[in-house]
Amino acid sequence: MQLGLVGLGKMGFNMRERLRRAGHEVVGYDRNPEVTDVATLADLASTLDGPRVVWIMVPAGDATRQTVAELAGILSDGDLVIDGGNSRFTDDAENAKLLAAKGIGYLDCGVSGGVWGLDNGYGLMVGGDAKDVEQAMPIFDALRPEGPRDEGFAHAGGVGAGHYAKMVHNGIEYGMMQAYAEGYELLDKVELVDNVPGVLKAWTRGTVVRSWLLDLLVKALEDDPALTDIKGYVEDSGEGRWTVEEAINNRVPAPVISAALYARFVSRQDDSPAMKAVAALRNQFGGHSVTKTQS
Amino acid sequence: MQLGLVGLGKMGFNMRERLRRAGHEVVGYDRNPEVTDVATLADLASTLDGPRVVWIMVPAGDATRQTVAELAGILSDGDLVIDGGNSRFTDDAENAKLLAAKGIGYLDCGVSGGVWGLDNGYGLMVGGDAKDVEQAMPIFDALRPEGPRDEGFAHAGGVGAGHYAKMVHNGIEYGMMQAYAEGYELLDKVELVDNVPGVLKAWTRGTVVRSWLLDLLVKALEDDPALTDIKGYVEDSGEGRWTVEEAINNRVPAPVISAALYARFVSRQDDSPAMKAVAALRNQFGGHSVTKTQS
Amino acid sequence: MQLGLVGLGKMGFNMRERLRRAGHEVVGYDRNPEVTDVATLADLASTLDGPRVVWIMVPAGDATRQTVAELAGILSDGDLVIDGGNSRFTDDAENAKLLAAKGIGYLDCGVSGGVWGLDNGYGLMVGGDAKDVEQAMPIFDALRPEGPRDEGFAHAGGVGAGHYAKMVHNGIEYGMMQAYAEGYELLDKVELVDNVPGVLKAWTRGTVVRSWLLDLLVKALEDDPALTDIKGYVEDSGEGRWTVEEAINNRVPAPVISAALYARFVSRQDDSPAMKAVAALRNQFGGHSVTKTQS
Amino acid sequence: MQLGLVGLGKMGFNMRERLRRAGHEVVGYDRNPEVTDVATLADLASTLDGPRVVWIMVPAGDATRQTVAELAGILSDGDLVIDGGNSRFTDDAENAKLLAAKGIGYLDCGVSGGVWGLDNGYGLMVGGDAKDVEQAMPIFDALRPEGPRDEGFAHAGGVGAGHYAKMVHNGIEYGMMQAYAEGYELLDKVELVDNVPGVLKAWTRGTVVRSWLLDLLVKALEDDPALTDIKGYVEDSGEGRWTVEEAINNRVPAPVISAALYARFVSRQDDSPAMKAVAALRNQFGGHSVTKTQS
Repeated sequence: MQLGLVGLGKMGFNMRERLRRAGHEVVGYDRNPEVTDVATLADLASTLDGPRVVWIMVPAGDATRQTVAELAGILSDGDLVIDGGNSRFTDDAENAKLLAAKGIGYLDCGVSGGVWGLDNGYGLMVGGDAKDVEQAMPIFDALRPEGPRDEGFAHAGGVGAGHYAKMVHNGIEYGMMQAYAEGYELLDKVELVDNVPGVLKAWTRGTVVRSWLLDLLVKALEDDPALTDIKGYVEDSGEGRWTVEEAINNRVPAPVISAALYARFVSRQDDSPAMKAVAALRNQFGGHSVTKTQS
Repeated sequence: MQLGLVGLGKMGFNMRERLRRAGHEVVGYDRNPEVTDVATLADLASTLDGPRVVWIMVPAGDATRQTVAELAGILSDGDLVIDGGNSRFTDDAENAKLLAAKGIGYLDCGVSGGVWGLDNGYGLMVGGDAKDVEQAMPIFDALRPEGPRDEGFAHAGGVGAGHYAKMVHNGIEYGMMQAYAEGYELLDKVELVDNVPGVLKAWTRGTVVRSWLLDLLVKALEDDPALTDIKGYVEDSGEGRWTVEEAINNRVPAPVISAALYARFVSRQDDSPAMKAVAALRNQFGGHSVTKTQS
Repeated sequence: MQLGLVGLGKMGFNMRERLRRAGHEVVGYDRNPEVTDVATLADLASTLDGPRVVWIMVPAGDATRQTVAELAGILSDGDLVIDGGNSRFTDDAENAKLLAAKGIGYLDCGVSGGVWGLDNGYGLMVGGDAKDVEQAMPIFDALRPEGPRDEGFAHAGGVGAGHYAKMVHNGIEYGMMQAYAEGYELLDKVELVDNVPGVLKAWTRGTVVRSWLLDLLVKALEDDPALTDIKGYVEDSGEGRWTVEEAINNRVPAPVISAALYARFVSRQDDSPAMKAVAALRNQFGGHSVTKTQS
Repeated sequence: MQLGLVGLGKMGFNMRERLRRAGHEVVGYDRNPEVTDVATLADLASTLDGPRVVWIMVPAGDATRQTVAELAGILSDGDLVIDGGNSRFTDDAENAKLLAAKGIGYLDCGVSGGVWGLDNGYGLMVGGDAKDVEQAMPIFDALRPEGPRDEGFAHAGGVGAGHYAKMVHNGIEYGMMQAYAEGYELLDKVELVDNVPGVLKAWTRGTVVRSWLLDLLVKALEDDPALTDIKGYVEDSGEGRWTVEEAINNRVPAPVISAALYARFVSRQDDSPAMKAVAALRNQFGGHSVTKTQS
């Protein structure tokens, strides 16, 4: 089927390619003239036959909201917009409402798989009305991994449920990565184990902790066995923060996901005001010496 | 090759079967007359041709230490003992020393894979001397999953390194399970997502969080979609506790693994003395009412 | 000076009393006819001479916002409203704007001290303009504890800063209470220490951990040495949750405050969906038995 | 009464002074000739009249164990040794046994108060036999703060209970310090609150979080309002680690104390192997750029 695809960055570019391989006709739009198929969003809309399906794959937040607003002015009754970016689920109700006023349908779709999705397929979690899901199903089927549909695709619930599920997916991802990372650090620290990359590789088959993330960690250690070149500095995107906020809003204890998030915050600090305060306190009550900052 | 196998419980029984399927001659000993092949440990030793290899698969702690001590009295110079149980790595040096005094070799082997190992194979992490590892390699090759040797087997280091690696493996396992569990609880709590088992199943291909543990959680939810029949009561075996102790001994921050361990402790409490104290405090300073215990 | 005081609950009632003891003329309004001094908010306003100062001490959220809105319609240019409740700091800018449109000043004041404030005085943290702070200073001086002004009162910053400081105060309070509670539980658990209430009492002078909260815990243990009558069920008000949200918004690691908050969430659960999931997983991979729910 | 005091460092020196002010006759021994009263331990013993009481105030571990062993050879039946250092409670049973073989009594005494103890007195937690406690009571009464005995002194239980109580005290201390530190960092980070030292000072009277530690933090901020000169590098002594180990041994959830301990571990790392692993993982699956180490 035909699909308009807005946003041809790291993710969108690969998705266009995967959809084309599956035989779909994809018209891509991006501000970058080197990758775009059409000059403007309006061109993209006019190129497609109705009812049109347009997939947005641009950064979450302002860029996505603005694209939705523009599409609301360009598309028409019976068309369908899918936000496949990492938007906060709270944006979805607003997007859906804006589009519904023009008779345009809306789905939110959480997409997981990173740069590997081109070949492996993407895990998809969708929120919205069943009839809209049905309309876009050929696209979902082409993007998701081969195998049974329900092992790489879910209709999670109404509008917002797709992004909600993706948000939680990423929260779990934080926790898993931190679990491996703590174990890695401990193995790295003790002298008894002198073959850390080998141990992690031996976990990739048969063990309880085998996973795709573990495979990737093994790959990273094959490139750089002591991770010498990489600094322990870790960004976080919104989903981890949102997951903790939602956990709190729903009174769900989330100590592991929170700990993983905080470890990232700490990794980005040059010095910690909190630990300055603790050092100051120890100095006050116990006369413990403090380490002075360089001046 | 020939192998003596002491302990034919849930793990040992399956391992004997997997080894026999691979063509090895296994003589099993267990106190349970219904599963044992020989009447006594001495019988087991006398049945085997030298140099003998005896694999211990009994509960960690006293049972394993006692079996090692008995074997030290029965086996002889050039034989080899492998402890495949979940022993604390600190036991290994003592076992090795006891056996070395008789000229008997010793390997410690962490074994992961649970009840699925019979068919999938077991992930193996081994500690000890290279020549002893070499001697037992046909056994390791039969137990580990098919595929390249290094994806299911590692010689982790000297005596103790195998159990150390397995200990850390289990600590990571705790953190991963808790990460999934927190995400599951959040999805379960919010109304927006109305297809929780479907969402988890959709994660099993293509996504970043796909793993064998996730596959098992999906299976559990297929049997009981809201886990209605299962109480949130979780035992812990030693490895999680030992991992945190080792993290502390080595000054390695392990917030995720610790949080996962503590969640298990809490799950087993009928009431929490700590939270009684917090409730008492709130009552004292704010006049906040407390919930009275039933009398 | 004169003060209108809206809300004569547990906190407001005591504050009226403390202010009157200090010689101030307080006109209190409450919906409860047994405690109110006037029949309506309008009566309260007409009883006071201008420029009027009205202190709001009602539940945070809708009740406070509604009172502000009513006062905006009743008070006039040059008057001053102070919100002394536990409002979220984000409410303050809106309250201030609403009142400013009528020329009415606004201060937000975090108040700590609980039921003990009547005699001990209340710790006060204020946000707003310096001239408004000056206008209400006789009231602040009467409410705060005796001693130097800056040991019980701070002008924390602009509108919202008072409630922000109070929010953080309560977050810290959560962490401190949980620290004592964990220590208490450990002492309570081990047999070696057979005089737990005595140990805690011995900490109240001279030690590093001495504090008012500790004094209260000692008092609670004097009433009920094993806290037998109190269930480990702990509510949380908004400030703890807001503190963690703000920590996340500002990328501040807050593992202790979060852990204290989550412990409260857990304390209120009959069963934990997360731990059901972990139990289910252990059963799947290891054949570990699960505890069945009663049916 | 007479007391032999071994160890005249930061703590012991002040304790000798406090005891002398109270009229006790203290004979101090230290390897440092500038502070010692006698040349050798044997001299110390021979200077005292029997039955002798000797208080050890040297570093925990080898130094204390060695001093106990020497005293076992010098003192005699009916004498009493008190270990006032920060020994692990597991050392106490061994010390007591060694001394009991010579008829010498043993008490372990946790001492809190730091450099302020000279003037404020020390909080004391004692383990051992009641008759030994009675014998040393004049010393305890002189060291503890003025006021009722039970507000600065407790007989916590049998041998080891004093150090156990002190260990838990320090664990709580870690949690409290971290709670203040997290709150401080959040206030420090947000622009809304522009008077952070003032806010903390305002908490010192009347509020729920008032404490001696808070007083010290206020003092530290008076010296250095933004803690500019202090690096966020924090040592930990054994008690925090032991508290977490004991929590785990006793299946007591201790998330707050653990988080405080881990924050100290992190504060001392130049780079984090764990966060290198997380950065490597993100790079692998998402093509997220990593920060390279300087080469």
